[in-house]
Amino acid sequence: MRLIKGKKIQLGLVGGGPKSWIGHVHRISSRFDNQYEIVAGVFSRNSQLSKRFGQSLGILKERCYSNFREMAEREAERKDGINVVAIMTPPSSHQIIAEKFIDKNIHVISDKPFAGNLAQAKKLFKKIKSNKKIKYALTHNYSAYPMVREAKVLVEKGKIGKVEYINVEYVQDWSDGENISQKNAKKKFKWKIDKNIVGASAVLNEIGSHAYHMATYISGLKGETIFADIKQVSNKVKMDNNAQVMINFNNGAKGMFWTSVMARGGVYGLRIRIFGTKGSLEWVQNDPNYLKLNPSNGSVKFIERGFFNAELSKKFSRLKFGHPEGYLDAFANIYREFAACLKNNVKKRYFYPNEDEGLETAKFIEACKVSNRKKRWVKIK
Amino acid sequence: MRLIKGKKIQLGLVGGGPKSWIGHVHRISSRFDNQYEIVAGVFSRNSQLSKRFGQSLGILKERCYSNFREMAEREAERKDGINVVAIMTPPSSHQIIAEKFIDKNIHVISDKPFAGNLAQAKKLFKKIKSNKKIKYALTHNYSAYPMVREAKVLVEKGKIGKVEYINVEYVQDWSDGENISQKNAKKKFKWKIDKNIVGASAVLNEIGSHAYHMATYISGLKGETIFADIKQVSNKVKMDNNAQVMINFNNGAKGMFWTSVMARGGVYGLRIRIFGTKGSLEWVQNDPNYLKLNPSNGSVKFIERGFFNAELSKKFSRLKFGHPEGYLDAFANIYREFAACLKNNVKKRYFYPNEDEGLETAKFIEACKVSNRKKRWVKIK
Amino acid sequence: MRLIKGKKIQLGLVGGGPKSWIGHVHRISSRFDNQYEIVAGVFSRNSQLSKRFGQSLGILKERCYSNFREMAEREAERKDGINVVAIMTPPSSHQIIAEKFIDKNIHVISDKPFAGNLAQAKKLFKKIKSNKKIKYALTHNYSAYPMVREAKVLVEKGKIGKVEYINVEYVQDWSDGENISQKNAKKKFKWKIDKNIVGASAVLNEIGSHAYHMATYISGLKGETIFADIKQVSNKVKMDNNAQVMINFNNGAKGMFWTSVMARGGVYGLRIRIFGTKGSLEWVQNDPNYLKLNPSNGSVKFIERGFFNAELSKKFSRLKFGHPEGYLDAFANIYREFAACLKNNVKKRYFYPNEDEGLETAKFIEACKVSNRKKRWVKIK
Amino acid sequence: MRLIKGKKIQLGLVGGGPKSWIGHVHRISSRFDNQYEIVAGVFSRNSQLSKRFGQSLGILKERCYSNFREMAEREAERKDGINVVAIMTPPSSHQIIAEKFIDKNIHVISDKPFAGNLAQAKKLFKKIKSNKKIKYALTHNYSAYPMVREAKVLVEKGKIGKVEYINVEYVQDWSDGENISQKNAKKKFKWKIDKNIVGASAVLNEIGSHAYHMATYISGLKGETIFADIKQVSNKVKMDNNAQVMINFNNGAKGMFWTSVMARGGVYGLRIRIFGTKGSLEWVQNDPNYLKLNPSNGSVKFIERGFFNAELSKKFSRLKFGHPEGYLDAFANIYREFAACLKNNVKKRYFYPNEDEGLETAKFIEACKVSNRKKRWVKIK
Repeated sequence: MRLIKGKKIQLGLVGGGPKSWIGHVHRISSRFDNQYEIVAGVFSRNSQLSKRFGQSLGILKERCYSNFREMAEREAERKDGINVVAIMTPPSSHQIIAEKFIDKNIHVISDKPFAGNLAQAKKLFKKIKSNKKIKYALTHNYSAYPMVREAKVLVEKGKIGKVEYINVEYVQDWSDGENISQKNAKKKFKWKIDKNIVGASAVLNEIGSHAYHMATYISGLKGETIFADIKQVSNKVKMDNNAQVMINFNNGAKGMFWTSVMARGGVYGLRIRIFGTKGSLEWVQNDPNYLKLNPSNGSVKFIERGFFNAELSKKFSRLKFGHPEGYLDAFANIYREFAACLKNNVKKRYFYPNEDEGLETAKFIEACKVSNRKKRWVKIK
Repeated sequence: MRLIKGKKIQLGLVGGGPKSWIGHVHRISSRFDNQYEIVAGVFSRNSQLSKRFGQSLGILKERCYSNFREMAEREAERKDGINVVAIMTPPSSHQIIAEKFIDKNIHVISDKPFAGNLAQAKKLFKKIKSNKKIKYALTHNYSAYPMVREAKVLVEKGKIGKVEYINVEYVQDWSDGENISQKNAKKKFKWKIDKNIVGASAVLNEIGSHAYHMATYISGLKGETIFADIKQVSNKVKMDNNAQVMINFNNGAKGMFWTSVMARGGVYGLRIRIFGTKGSLEWVQNDPNYLKLNPSNGSVKFIERGFFNAELSKKFSRLKFGHPEGYLDAFANIYREFAACLKNNVKKRYFYPNEDEGLETAKFIEACKVSNRKKRWVKIK
Repeated sequence: MRLIKGKKIQLGLVGGGPKSWIGHVHRISSRFDNQYEIVAGVFSRNSQLSKRFGQSLGILKERCYSNFREMAEREAERKDGINVVAIMTPPSSHQIIAEKFIDKNIHVISDKPFAGNLAQAKKLFKKIKSNKKIKYALTHNYSAYPMVREAKVLVEKGKIGKVEYINVEYVQDWSDGENISQKNAKKKFKWKIDKNIVGASAVLNEIGSHAYHMATYISGLKGETIFADIKQVSNKVKMDNNAQVMINFNNGAKGMFWTSVMARGGVYGLRIRIFGTKGSLEWVQNDPNYLKLNPSNGSVKFIERGFFNAELSKKFSRLKFGHPEGYLDAFANIYREFAACLKNNVKKRYFYPNEDEGLETAKFIEACKVSNRKKRWVKIK
Repeated sequence: MRLIKGKKIQLGLVGGGPKSWIGHVHRISSRFDNQYEIVAGVFSRNSQLSKRFGQSLGILKERCYSNFREMAEREAERKDGINVVAIMTPPSSHQIIAEKFIDKNIHVISDKPFAGNLAQAKKLFKKIKSNKKIKYALTHNYSAYPMVREAKVLVEKGKIGKVEYINVEYVQDWSDGENISQKNAKKKFKWKIDKNIVGASAVLNEIGSHAYHMATYISGLKGETIFADIKQVSNKVKMDNNAQVMINFNNGAKGMFWTSVMARGGVYGLRIRIFGTKGSLEWVQNDPNYLKLNPSNGSVKFIERGFFNAELSKKFSRLKFGHPEGYLDAFANIYREFAACLKNNVKKRYFYPNEDEGLETAKFIEACKVSNRKKRWVKIK
């Protein structure tokens, strides 16, 4: 659907119903910079519920649909149909939904992970590449923090030399303070346990995908071989809740990831450290406006978003240094940059994650599963 | 103007033109929660500029006005006129603009400080109190951080006992890394130097007002007497750039404020510490999702937004713990709560700052000026 | 008493009995670098107690004295008499004890403050200056942290430009978690309340002296005028427990000190920040191996003890970077440097605090008392 | 050798010559609490050098020996011979030296690692256990930080529930800011490259041993199986410089260690995190006076050494809370407690590391080497 000059980008939503947390995040992000207008959506398999919720968002009743297929068909027929669809359903449905809209030449913003498993990912990747009319963005949102992008460019510029080691950890606590029994767990984590819905592995799909994405996004490297050790909640509850991975990158660098949803206390969060021959970088989501640069022969620097030595970060910031930005500001950067990309005919460099990164991450997750099963190093392929 | 059910609150803007930083902040904040629709505004004394900018925001040409008087008149005449005006002009014009809209029974959200000086503040206060149909919110935005409100309630509940000491610092660096000559300063700080525009004192109006507001907001106390020492940039450049203040509160507590815009390195920011007979609290804007509670007979606690022990914060959060919120999320809390207040007929407690706090802060700033001139303790009155 | 080559410096102690905390600190510090041998001392007014404790330290019975006068006389008569006396009695006795030993040409290491009040300080200062044979060190120990000295030299080298503002805070909690009643306080703080023992002001002598010393030590400035506000525990308990001071330095810089012993939670500690025209420095005792350098046009640097950009610190360190040093390591630096000074005939620069700093600090404390009483700015003189 | 009442413990040293860093650390630690007197030693294979250095420490010429065998023989013959020998030579000689002194019924304090390899470790362990007259302490010094011991006891008391995950990292930068060529490396790291001297693996012996020790010391667990990935500097330089290890503990818990000496920027240091079913603990050597306790259903607590909730830490502290202790204070705790153990006939619990921990750590290192070679999980045995 062609964008209309002087009009906001027409956005449709699939998923993100009343109980969804990520739906809320996507909607705020789309409003942040006044670039999108939410005009259509499907929010539940329950048609009535979907309509009621859609209308509460200000969507016309007739554009609140019962399912994504109907939505894709109808919107494609409208003159004022949506330009972009944002998908925020469980992982295993990402591929099929995205493909339907791509077939209608509608651009896609998809929540991560790219797909529910590697087979789906390969299909979806092929589909995206085959349609030159559409663009695809994947909301690996942590990579949209200004100081993460600053880090990426510092590595490119050689500020830490050749990368030799990458350590990523993303640890959470899903227990909500409870001692979760088998029974509780099944109830509490519902769809996270159903691999048909959540896909390959709860912990890897949900947060492991972020770990791998961050490492490769900032370093510019790809993983070559991995050794993984994945833990289930218990014999009875078939949900993975902890994954540790050793990795060899394509330039000879080594690394280690640790992702967990059973890390009680749960406030450790996402941290990435990249070591090179000349120094190292550290970024933690809990203190996202700073990037720590440790040169091997000088003092540690705390590079602040929007301040001196962080020129790039200014392009992805809305606030001056000194005033903290957070998770939503970063998430909205993907929406903002995708809008700029759709509107802009001139070639320029975009930093938002896309299908290439989606496929790579799916390969990584698959390799982790195989390695864990075979208990040996395996190739990412 | 009555709110129409099922329709967003109709919002008009005065100030916040293309070069304004705070204008941007207000607009994002108003969009955050889908509660307001920006439908009218005046953005420049230059009528053409005002219209052009207004239209770029999606406002109809006919509702982009040349000045605030015209806007108030016309909007009041329309059936679909604005419900709320948001004012983000320089301080000395806040009073006259707010009064105009209040006369038309239009609710007001005003940027701080309340007014350009104490005389204006008293007039405006009286005007607001005299019109029962309107509500007034003052964007002392730091008080809208969830953990600041959590702090307020912890003090109310007696968690730190009787307050005995309050230390607030808000230090910034306006030099942008330059060594500012007299000449530069005049150019660089333009309107900040003109007391007719900025009001009482640049440093006190801009950031000192925040310091006093935060101290009284969290503690529930009022200042009684103060001793102030204010510094000008130089003999030639009549802009205040540093103010230090000792204060005695109405319960016998003491305190100290330090506000500066010449603190090179400029990344210290806003910090408040409140000490009571049973413990103390600390909050810093650079790490806004945490509140430090130091009991006098136990370990320091880092209370995290959205986590256990921070129930109140959940009401003023959009994100789960672990994911940082920032400046905009807090600013938007004022818009969100003001919307709830306007829509809600049931009596409940609101936490957004209003005219009472505005007047108190104006009294404080005036007392600082007098004390600095007389070089002695003076009453806040 | 002449030092004997190849033999450790013979050290006598006055004060620091079994219940004394600071006595323990001095003794460990004297042993740290194998430069001193404790051979004589007086530890209590109770002669028996003094002897028993002295012997437990390994001192010969005959060199455990009943009072400092006896000790000075006898040690001066011995061929193997002490070279140095270390004084760690309550403040008001510092002067009279030091003078006695100076008269016997015995070098002095004295705990701070220099003296109990300004009159005593002036006398002692004159006495020290009048005896060219002896050297005097004052254990303002915080100035002996390697990174504090690094800061001093960075300021000297102009790294932060001309100093414009100094903020020091030293806040403690002496309540031990209790709600201290009048009665308790009198018992709990015993000699701290008796001005004949503790001298001018508990809070100023105990920790305010450190605040002023640190500010002038690092900046190289002197105070000119001050405005002070001192608080007593209560009308009945005549112990000062909080002091806040504004200060104008001799180069036009301004500053603020806050010292307290009623800051519940009590773990804030000592922090100093110095702002100049090109940047600022921050050091906190809780994290003593780092010095924060905030240039006004670049990233914040965390300069680490013993690492690159901290050359000076290596001279005052025993450990490599990465391994934390603490309070005792710093305290021992004064003992070590004083030993080097006594042994070394070559002129070199010493960084340990001496009588000059002692007198200045006494003037500062006196001025604070006067200003607090008169409620106006007063000169430090 | 029997201790003589009222006399300090007579201490002999093996190793720690003029260029040795750790020798300096051991000597300061032995002096800290006035419990030991250094009276004999061998400091170099060069007899003259050994004597000269020994005398500079105040040791009689006749008790400065040419080698450890001579020292053991002669000291055992003296009535006033040493009670304790402290060994601080390279790892591969630890066993043979310790055994010699044990045979003479002299107590041993040994620097870590326990031995150069597992075979040596087993022999030494047997020897120690076979002589009931002697006691053995191993200076795994990090375990002697007061807050590490506090952590151990908190785990014992069940404060974090059943341990489920342990993450330890100890990362250093040995490059000194240089880009180390093959040639440089050989020169720079001399004995670290020679496995006959350093033992099993440079990185594992030097710092990996600490990682494993800390994990088991605090958790009370033992490792069962491990998967290790060890990296050499290069094909030519046969020094290990990075080791990452996954581990399964004997209670089913999992964990991960990362130890490196190539982590440029090098200021990351030692960090341990232990997660249980009720919460987690974190301790970092860079901030050693605090222990972070994250309950799964409450705020993070910063437990401070010497303050409330840290009763145990007071037994292992010399300073009040608020004043930082460091590396040397902790190291000295082993000397102090070992002295108490030797003097005390009453049974009490001691916290210093001993031969049991030494043997376990040697098994761990051996298992890492095997796993790395075989590229599979192996048992620790």
